[in-house]
Amino acid sequence: MSSPSELTRESGAKAFDGHQYVYNHESSTVGCKMKFGVYVPAKAEKERVPLLIFLSGLTCTEQNFITKSGVQRLASEYGFIVANPDTSPRGCKIEGDSDNWAFGEGAGYYVDATESKWSKNYRMFSYVNDEFYGLLIKNFNVDPNRIGIFGHSMGGHGALVSFFKRPAQYKSVSAFAPICNMSTSEWGVDAYKKFFGQDENLWKQYDATELVASYHGPKPHAPILIDQGSDDNFLAKYLLPKRLINACEKASFPIYFREQAGYDHSYYFIMTFLEDHFKYHKKEFENSK
Amino acid sequence: MSSPSELTRESGAKAFDGHQYVYNHESSTVGCKMKFGVYVPAKAEKERVPLLIFLSGLTCTEQNFITKSGVQRLASEYGFIVANPDTSPRGCKIEGDSDNWAFGEGAGYYVDATESKWSKNYRMFSYVNDEFYGLLIKNFNVDPNRIGIFGHSMGGHGALVSFFKRPAQYKSVSAFAPICNMSTSEWGVDAYKKFFGQDENLWKQYDATELVASYHGPKPHAPILIDQGSDDNFLAKYLLPKRLINACEKASFPIYFREQAGYDHSYYFIMTFLEDHFKYHKKEFENSK
Repeated sequence: MSSPSELTRESGAKAFDGHQYVYNHESSTVGCKMKFGVYVPAKAEKERVPLLIFLSGLTCTEQNFITKSGVQRLASEYGFIVANPDTSPRGCKIEGDSDNWAFGEGAGYYVDATESKWSKNYRMFSYVNDEFYGLLIKNFNVDPNRIGIFGHSMGGHGALVSFFKRPAQYKSVSAFAPICNMSTSEWGVDAYKKFFGQDENLWKQYDATELVASYHGPKPHAPILIDQGSDDNFLAKYLLPKRLINACEKASFPIYFREQAGYDHSYYFIMTFLEDHFKYHKKEFENSK
Repeated sequence: MSSPSELTRESGAKAFDGHQYVYNHESSTVGCKMKFGVYVPAKAEKERVPLLIFLSGLTCTEQNFITKSGVQRLASEYGFIVANPDTSPRGCKIEGDSDNWAFGEGAGYYVDATESKWSKNYRMFSYVNDEFYGLLIKNFNVDPNRIGIFGHSMGGHGALVSFFKRPAQYKSVSAFAPICNMSTSEWGVDAYKKFFGQDENLWKQYDATELVASYHGPKPHAPILIDQGSDDNFLAKYLLPKRLINACEKASFPIYFREQAGYDHSYYFIMTFLEDHFKYHKKEFENSK
């Protein structure tokens, strides 16, 4: 495949009969060059196929998921394009964007900041759900009626928020060890203070647990799938899944939360349960035809 | 599982119902602390299981294979322990051991050096085939009658040499993009001059193409499996598979060499064909009962 015109291919390698690419492009949304990974299965040479967007967690670039998860085998077998953006703008040189691994570069939280210091570049919500979403449909053989989103940790939250705020765009959502209640999680409080200032009502606009309570979009056919390792060091203090589970129950929003005994927060956990997430998304795509 | 006494556990993560560990130990063979990865499937808690030793290529540590290949899924499914050592001694501070990514640290070539400068520490052949081999049998639930070895690039060569020199220890051998004729490959010539001096007869003692010609051990039941990507940048100048294929033919030693169209030298290539190697080793283990 030749490189789409607005995209610059940084690397490509054949894997499971398809190709794992890394591209970059100049993003008008976040005002810098952005990289992303995209696996294109052989099947996409002949027909439009489903798309899964994967959002990574804190500290990740576009490399972690494509290097460590084993996703290529599944994307090939299921015939899905799988695309994963970087986790933040980079190289914008905003004071304080690199002091802390949990904020700024590698930690964009998939929100559109409102504070002037950050609001020009830290617009990852719009980047993912408008610009990135659009360029994938435009440049790859994606069936726009079969698009799902999932992610890990900060990216699991980003996936849930994307789904709740843009139900028309996604048929399905799932998550690995998501930060579930960002506006009360220590990471989220620190980041949202900077991105949004002191008005906590703004924080709640990017909080999965808050958003499900007011969600009025179509409900997924099957409960949304969330896997959480029981030995995850971040579970008690940062991830707070019970709050999301309770909010879903209260809102009669179907959620299938699985606590996986003995698993931690790493890609070893993700790789183990990744196929179950493919099965879940596939089923939603079939039910949505 | 508690940590075996001579080993120090650096990390452990549950994956596919088993565990991916990294251990270190003080190696008497190479005179420094050595790390290795070992995946222990759940099955090994109940019974002795086969062992595959994987040798990595130039620049690798014990991390590359366990992070990038997706081996845990297969090791779990097939019920194999899979162990992978580091690719060289480290921290020995020998002048010239870190000047070149293709020699010294991260590039031990799985040989026992004879030149005095290197011969104290650069004894990776004995390390892998005596000390490491022995500690795996002693400390993990390995069936010593079902042990195979495989590897990638420099490690593919190391696996072939280990098999040809120690046929009693291994039931099976396979390789991904091995350096096939080390004593004439540019990398090998540079390294072997340093490790062995100018006597090319010493070089040939660690050369798979030379060794198969004089091999008198038992022949494997099925041809040994070698996969090679056609788009591998190192193929023409460094890997030289035709010389090994010709030598095997001449020696009536069975080899199944597969050129995989479009694949490169990366872990994306390895992950794609890894299951075929598991199938090959499993079959040899079954035939060896």
